[in-house]
Amino acid sequence: MSEQLDTEYGWLSDEEIETVRGRLPIVYVDAVPVRIDEAGNVTHVGLLLRAMPDGTISRAIVGGRVLWGERVRDALVRHLEKDLGSLALPKIPPSPAPFTVAEYFPDPTKTGYYDPRQHAVSLVFLVPIEGICEPSQSSLEITWVTPAEAVSDEVISEMTSGHDRLVRLAMAHAGTLP
Amino acid sequence: MSEQLDTEYGWLSDEEIETVRGRLPIVYVDAVPVRIDEAGNVTHVGLLLRAMPDGTISRAIVGGRVLWGERVRDALVRHLEKDLGSLALPKIPPSPAPFTVAEYFPDPTKTGYYDPRQHAVSLVFLVPIEGICEPSQSSLEITWVTPAEAVSDEVISEMTSGHDRLVRLAMAHAGTLP
Amino acid sequence: MSEQLDTEYGWLSDEEIETVRGRLPIVYVDAVPVRIDEAGNVTHVGLLLRAMPDGTISRAIVGGRVLWGERVRDALVRHLEKDLGSLALPKIPPSPAPFTVAEYFPDPTKTGYYDPRQHAVSLVFLVPIEGICEPSQSSLEITWVTPAEAVSDEVISEMTSGHDRLVRLAMAHAGTLP
Amino acid sequence: MSEQLDTEYGWLSDEEIETVRGRLPIVYVDAVPVRIDEAGNVTHVGLLLRAMPDGTISRAIVGGRVLWGERVRDALVRHLEKDLGSLALPKIPPSPAPFTVAEYFPDPTKTGYYDPRQHAVSLVFLVPIEGICEPSQSSLEITWVTPAEAVSDEVISEMTSGHDRLVRLAMAHAGTLP
Repeated sequence: MSEQLDTEYGWLSDEEIETVRGRLPIVYVDAVPVRIDEAGNVTHVGLLLRAMPDGTISRAIVGGRVLWGERVRDALVRHLEKDLGSLALPKIPPSPAPFTVAEYFPDPTKTGYYDPRQHAVSLVFLVPIEGICEPSQSSLEITWVTPAEAVSDEVISEMTSGHDRLVRLAMAHAGTLP
Repeated sequence: MSEQLDTEYGWLSDEEIETVRGRLPIVYVDAVPVRIDEAGNVTHVGLLLRAMPDGTISRAIVGGRVLWGERVRDALVRHLEKDLGSLALPKIPPSPAPFTVAEYFPDPTKTGYYDPRQHAVSLVFLVPIEGICEPSQSSLEITWVTPAEAVSDEVISEMTSGHDRLVRLAMAHAGTLP
Repeated sequence: MSEQLDTEYGWLSDEEIETVRGRLPIVYVDAVPVRIDEAGNVTHVGLLLRAMPDGTISRAIVGGRVLWGERVRDALVRHLEKDLGSLALPKIPPSPAPFTVAEYFPDPTKTGYYDPRQHAVSLVFLVPIEGICEPSQSSLEITWVTPAEAVSDEVISEMTSGHDRLVRLAMAHAGTLP
Repeated sequence: MSEQLDTEYGWLSDEEIETVRGRLPIVYVDAVPVRIDEAGNVTHVGLLLRAMPDGTISRAIVGGRVLWGERVRDALVRHLEKDLGSLALPKIPPSPAPFTVAEYFPDPTKTGYYDPRQHAVSLVFLVPIEGICEPSQSSLEITWVTPAEAVSDEVISEMTSGHDRLVRLAMAHAGTLP
């Protein structure tokens, strides 16, 4: 969801991008990276520090656009690699169904998911990470926090765009929301 | 998914539509209409007869595009009303998560979900229908069949675009796949 | 989950019940009753006031044991009718999969779901209610609160056994957790 | 689901087991073992060859009882290790919600899930396997087949108790049902 994503529209002119973004919802994926133990319990949540579409530098989850011709699964792999590095070894879930859908709008009051640039419909997945993460292209830092920390007021205050809520929904899905 | 949907792009010129469809995945919703009994058991599946994007007249489920600014839920309501009439009383599920995601491509071999016009990412829901259905704008006929009939070779032979598979996936989700 | 449920073990002697409860996990269902609008948005959550297994009178969701030979769906219908009355018109979801599983233990620290009497494995469903509710056999009162109220500190303080957490998980599942 | 499971009731006398099995539903877990690629696509399904409760030697999925005091997740780990060996490295899903629920009854016509010994309510999970599998305590053989083979008439004819249907439901959940 960083400003950098604009460059992915290489095959659309800047003008075309603006035209499209004002007329069609854009397909996105979001991924909440987690560490799990051998019984599947979530022990940690991975939060990026990155430039957000709303102009802030905030804690955030992994995400970005699905390209024309690209499978949703492959978009997940690509964005996870882009944000966590090529050694992260993400475990993409076998089911194509996201655990929730986040609808981002330029109007922050509509759903609470906010993107000043566009209407994006994002498929949100919980993705266990087994490898080594390092900030790469678009993230300044990756921090691993416990589920309790991830839903604390302090961490929430460092997140925007509704990403804090997606983390709570992910913890609820995993049964680890306090 | 009928050709008639093109008219929904009223605020995009024909040329613009073609440009966009070749460059961005389009957000869709599909709905498998079902009748359920008081314990939630699926007793019947509703199949439309309609013009499909591949040029055939086939049995199909309900579906169509999500418009800019429109919530996924509201797109479901709109397409169900368009295809089943205004007295259908669809019961939209409370969860925003679809039970599966269908990725339609112009290349029919890529996922099995086929749309010659575009790459569409469709959120697919199972929607109980409580009211009276009648073909309206875009469907010629509505037929209610049992789960066993819905997955029979005869009915499958009357469906295209992967809709027969979506019906099987819906029956599996409901636990009524034979 | 009320003490009254013991009477359902009519065909087991009191001694047998105690033997079984200490040796086998018991199958339960829980239902979070909700009011939804025509687009499926959760507008209200129904909370009972009832005697809980931990000896308190607390706000709680609907629930109880699955009997030998009984389908999970039918247990849901039975407990909803028992707690909300016969005019509640619950809409049991078509999918047999619960949105979460609550594991109640006599040790309250094990999962946070607490039942001093037994180890119960509960399948938890979100169930839209369309009819008129009235306290019946086992509940003293039914209150409808908004999703925001349902997860407020005040309401949480009136709940025990982990039911407040199940309400938060249900709101997260419906995308309406604040 | 093998006859061997009876020995797990070590702390219940044979007489007590029979009493309980005729009076209470028993909590089970089933796991459909799969191999997935790096994008989460299911490439193979693991089928055991084992003695089934119905007296046949059949292809089957992994499963068994949840013990008193045991978490569902831990029961999954235990049964996967028992059936696939200690080097199987199963990836237990983070969500506690099963993808479907199978209700086994002594009456095979009730749900299609059949267990002559008992009424069992089984939480069914799709579990990616990353390690090396070898038949251990209760399985004679493990075979890996493609999703298409797993739902073929030939393989179906080698399965009983409704396990063939659970495999189809698992493939549907993963979007790989043909």
